[in-house]
Amino acid sequence: MMERLYPICRSITGDGVRRTLDVIGEAVPLDRHSVPSGTAVHDWTINDEWNVRDAYIADASGRRVVDFRKHNLHLVSYSVPVRATMTLSELRPHLHTLPEHPDWIPYRTTYYDRTWGFCLSQRQLDAMDDDTPYEVVIDTALGPGELTYGEVFLPGETEHEVLLSAHVCHPSIANDNLSGIVVACELAAVLAARPRRRYGYRFLFAPGTIGSITWLSRNAGRLAAVRHGLVLTGLGGPGELVYKRTRNGDKQVDRAASHVVRRAGGQTRPYSPYGYDERQFNALGFDMPVGRLSRTPHGEYPEYHTSADDLAFVEDDQLLGGLDAAIAIIDVLERDRNYRNLSPYGEPQLGARGLYPSVGGKAASDTVMAMLWTLAYSDGRTPLLEIAELADLDFAVLDEAAASLMEGGVLASVID
Amino acid sequence: MMERLYPICRSITGDGVRRTLDVIGEAVPLDRHSVPSGTAVHDWTINDEWNVRDAYIADASGRRVVDFRKHNLHLVSYSVPVRATMTLSELRPHLHTLPEHPDWIPYRTTYYDRTWGFCLSQRQLDAMDDDTPYEVVIDTALGPGELTYGEVFLPGETEHEVLLSAHVCHPSIANDNLSGIVVACELAAVLAARPRRRYGYRFLFAPGTIGSITWLSRNAGRLAAVRHGLVLTGLGGPGELVYKRTRNGDKQVDRAASHVVRRAGGQTRPYSPYGYDERQFNALGFDMPVGRLSRTPHGEYPEYHTSADDLAFVEDDQLLGGLDAAIAIIDVLERDRNYRNLSPYGEPQLGARGLYPSVGGKAASDTVMAMLWTLAYSDGRTPLLEIAELADLDFAVLDEAAASLMEGGVLASVID
Amino acid sequence: MMERLYPICRSITGDGVRRTLDVIGEAVPLDRHSVPSGTAVHDWTINDEWNVRDAYIADASGRRVVDFRKHNLHLVSYSVPVRATMTLSELRPHLHTLPEHPDWIPYRTTYYDRTWGFCLSQRQLDAMDDDTPYEVVIDTALGPGELTYGEVFLPGETEHEVLLSAHVCHPSIANDNLSGIVVACELAAVLAARPRRRYGYRFLFAPGTIGSITWLSRNAGRLAAVRHGLVLTGLGGPGELVYKRTRNGDKQVDRAASHVVRRAGGQTRPYSPYGYDERQFNALGFDMPVGRLSRTPHGEYPEYHTSADDLAFVEDDQLLGGLDAAIAIIDVLERDRNYRNLSPYGEPQLGARGLYPSVGGKAASDTVMAMLWTLAYSDGRTPLLEIAELADLDFAVLDEAAASLMEGGVLASVID
Repeated sequence: MMERLYPICRSITGDGVRRTLDVIGEAVPLDRHSVPSGTAVHDWTINDEWNVRDAYIADASGRRVVDFRKHNLHLVSYSVPVRATMTLSELRPHLHTLPEHPDWIPYRTTYYDRTWGFCLSQRQLDAMDDDTPYEVVIDTALGPGELTYGEVFLPGETEHEVLLSAHVCHPSIANDNLSGIVVACELAAVLAARPRRRYGYRFLFAPGTIGSITWLSRNAGRLAAVRHGLVLTGLGGPGELVYKRTRNGDKQVDRAASHVVRRAGGQTRPYSPYGYDERQFNALGFDMPVGRLSRTPHGEYPEYHTSADDLAFVEDDQLLGGLDAAIAIIDVLERDRNYRNLSPYGEPQLGARGLYPSVGGKAASDTVMAMLWTLAYSDGRTPLLEIAELADLDFAVLDEAAASLMEGGVLASVID
Repeated sequence: MMERLYPICRSITGDGVRRTLDVIGEAVPLDRHSVPSGTAVHDWTINDEWNVRDAYIADASGRRVVDFRKHNLHLVSYSVPVRATMTLSELRPHLHTLPEHPDWIPYRTTYYDRTWGFCLSQRQLDAMDDDTPYEVVIDTALGPGELTYGEVFLPGETEHEVLLSAHVCHPSIANDNLSGIVVACELAAVLAARPRRRYGYRFLFAPGTIGSITWLSRNAGRLAAVRHGLVLTGLGGPGELVYKRTRNGDKQVDRAASHVVRRAGGQTRPYSPYGYDERQFNALGFDMPVGRLSRTPHGEYPEYHTSADDLAFVEDDQLLGGLDAAIAIIDVLERDRNYRNLSPYGEPQLGARGLYPSVGGKAASDTVMAMLWTLAYSDGRTPLLEIAELADLDFAVLDEAAASLMEGGVLASVID
Repeated sequence: MMERLYPICRSITGDGVRRTLDVIGEAVPLDRHSVPSGTAVHDWTINDEWNVRDAYIADASGRRVVDFRKHNLHLVSYSVPVRATMTLSELRPHLHTLPEHPDWIPYRTTYYDRTWGFCLSQRQLDAMDDDTPYEVVIDTALGPGELTYGEVFLPGETEHEVLLSAHVCHPSIANDNLSGIVVACELAAVLAARPRRRYGYRFLFAPGTIGSITWLSRNAGRLAAVRHGLVLTGLGGPGELVYKRTRNGDKQVDRAASHVVRRAGGQTRPYSPYGYDERQFNALGFDMPVGRLSRTPHGEYPEYHTSADDLAFVEDDQLLGGLDAAIAIIDVLERDRNYRNLSPYGEPQLGARGLYPSVGGKAASDTVMAMLWTLAYSDGRTPLLEIAELADLDFAVLDEAAASLMEGGVLASVID
């Protein structure tokens, strides 16, 4: 799927987004939504739609020295139409390079300022000639149209929902965010196959910032149902898992994701108001419990927002590890609950229930320890996840212990 | 006392426990309690009583290759009677060794499963012969009897009690727990000699798990009077002092013991539901403020639960350091209280009361600093121990400072 | 100013204090207060006034081997008049030296004990002769007089005040505390030049301990108006800035000063009841929010309370850094307030208000980050300083961001 999505020229609106949703829709049951340009969405207004037919800089001989058809990062996103002959010095204010990475093309946008530009490698720029004129052609269409986003919803046993969001507005950049898109699709497939789900799962595939704000604007009545959420992005690149907390910092999703990510060798970071769509979901007026799951975050790897974030930059194992972590976080959210120890006057005689090794004197196994921790702290008010943290054991091990103890009649789940 | 106690074959019931209580009773005024086999105690039932006359494995020549009379760890505790001729391969499922310590005999029990076994050194096992039959004799008695435990009570000025507990069920193992028994006896003697005690002190000498659960079952009406408690164990072996907190983690005994143990170079650990009888006292239904004082805990030294935990493994200085720490913790509990600064408008003129050095300009001594800290924080609500922690000074130094300030008329104890 | 103040022989009373206040009064509008000897001030009584005409130890030839006129540290402060001929062994109990620093003269006082003494270098002492008699002359006057202190008050827009205090009782010692005096004077000049002040600023120049207690005693009705305060001392010596917290530890001044000092590379320390006049302001009966700003504190540099703390020991850059920090702390106190995000439903479109860079894809600047942090947390209850700490940015950067956002119409200050 990433190989099919990679060449498409996406932006915050336009054919590229629609073609991307087509591909996603082949994998998961996608509802598509369109909102006309000019529609007010909270503090913003949906921009004109932008599409590209062609864009290049050609030298006097007609040779294209910068060519959108070779790499869609060459054109600054939302560039207005241009057809002109310019010297290099006239062109320079419109050219973006990365001198420290002379072979890479940067990614730049100008969504809300009607101007234009080209991104090129430093080597391409160095090869250009100060003295001869260049033909500059940007054949774009920028006019009333629509913003498009897609949703997948998997109903659950309760009205409560988990929101999973991946931005779909970046052009040929693989880790940011084809990685988030494919992990979200696979996660949706995994959850769809489950016979029971405690929560409904809502997957949002929308352009960054304006897309999530549009969704928030059109779903005001639904927001309260969202109990947990994750923004999925940058999961195929280098580095360990990184969970970014919600603005509040201590929501259930924060505890669940911290547990999973830390035990997988990753790290947890506090909220910061910069990043991806978590900054919209966490805005003061919404205050939604949405964290972010990634690997090395935006801006911390040199390939970020350049042509070097390509298909080769993304590794299968990293993507699979990201998917596993997302599933494990959801499993905690699905399975965590409060239990009550039904035999609280001293340790119950687990051996009599076949739950304790008959030969004493040796160290206790993780299984036995998980039962002892669960009994020691299950006062009806302490979630199992908190006990897992106290015990320094995987939630899954505690969850199995709780099941054994319930079978043994010494533990009961608290109805909440 | 340890030398007399060491050879006795103790278990959770039987003559060994009674003989152990006899020895303790020579040192301190012990009340002995017996509870018949079959008695229900919370989730448990008191087991049959177990006693050993003889047990061995003999080769074809009649030579005992494993002999209970040489070391009582050779017999798995609570082994049922056996009289049989078996090949080594038939015997093997009943033999326990420690291959990584080929000269040591492990300690194993089978209290609640009617089976049998021998513990032997790996060298002993290696010397046995696959081809010749062995005579296996376990001459034990396992039938209705009683569980026995002892109590020492020293009354105090209030109805409130401090519980001190040491398990008496391990056979010839010195650090675990003859060390706890002798420290408890000596502590009882020290406290008995005091003219005044704020608290009553209740010392419990009982078999592990079933013994404390039995005591808890028979003393339900007394539990609320227990304001602080310590399990004493493993105080003669290697390593610094280790205080294990109560399950709640922030009881008065936790603060007192943390203060003493940390200042003595030891460490404090959070609660864990594995260990000694603290796991019964801290069970949800009791929730008693009982921590545990030891040195390197169970399972963290290789000699643990083996024949290498013998009299030579225990050092006098370690035992005395453990006793000193227990006394210091009790002194904090006895002496800590809230004071009120009677001269709170600026620093009182301590020099005029003979409490301040007359020549100024030099650094302040600990004694002066202790007075200044006490005055600075004695608002009637802040315990002196908390001030000692703020001041990073021993509680005893603060306690002396408080006495001086009371004599000087600038401090009063708050009646609570 | 330090050069003029350095030679003056100050003590807790006397001409030296008055002459010091004269010099201060040339720089800032000083109100002078005098309180007669014998006046009761809380637990203390104002001492007799002490003045020195001459003091020396002369050898048989009449040569002064220790001479107050050469260094006023030679005489123990508050020494009673003496005129005697004594052997060295009779003299010794009255002589103070620093053997480990044989060229330095220590600083000693005997304010509340009617005795006398000389401080001299170890070399001076070593040169004295055991066999010949010495003439000892202390020509001091110790009798009813007054304690003197000075105040500068700069009114503010509210009745609330900031107290800034520097002790003026030490004789020829430069860092302790001519440094505090000159920083306070310069700070007063800076604040006096401001067109608007949220707070009134009260500068206190008083002798240590008895001076601040006298002021506290005579200003009981004014204390509640003091919302923040700093003791200024030891700002010209070596080391980074050190902020000592109030006894409570979490007052507004603690947060403001911690922010400034930590970001300047300095450190914050908890309260301790030893030190300078913060121990009086923080006494339980007053509980005033007064911290202390210094560099390496009293007793932690070898020159402390010796003749080596002279003018050469104090550096201009250190003094200026101390002044800058004091101003920055006051700026936080003046400027910090709660704001409310007026566009809380997602991120407001800052680009449309000229507050966001038009070309996207690059990392955000501190200025943009400061705006995003301010918007993300300005819920009307979170002070801007707290947001600066979350953002790990200087308060001043946040303050500018808040101003930009208010201009942009997306932020409002909360009236409190």
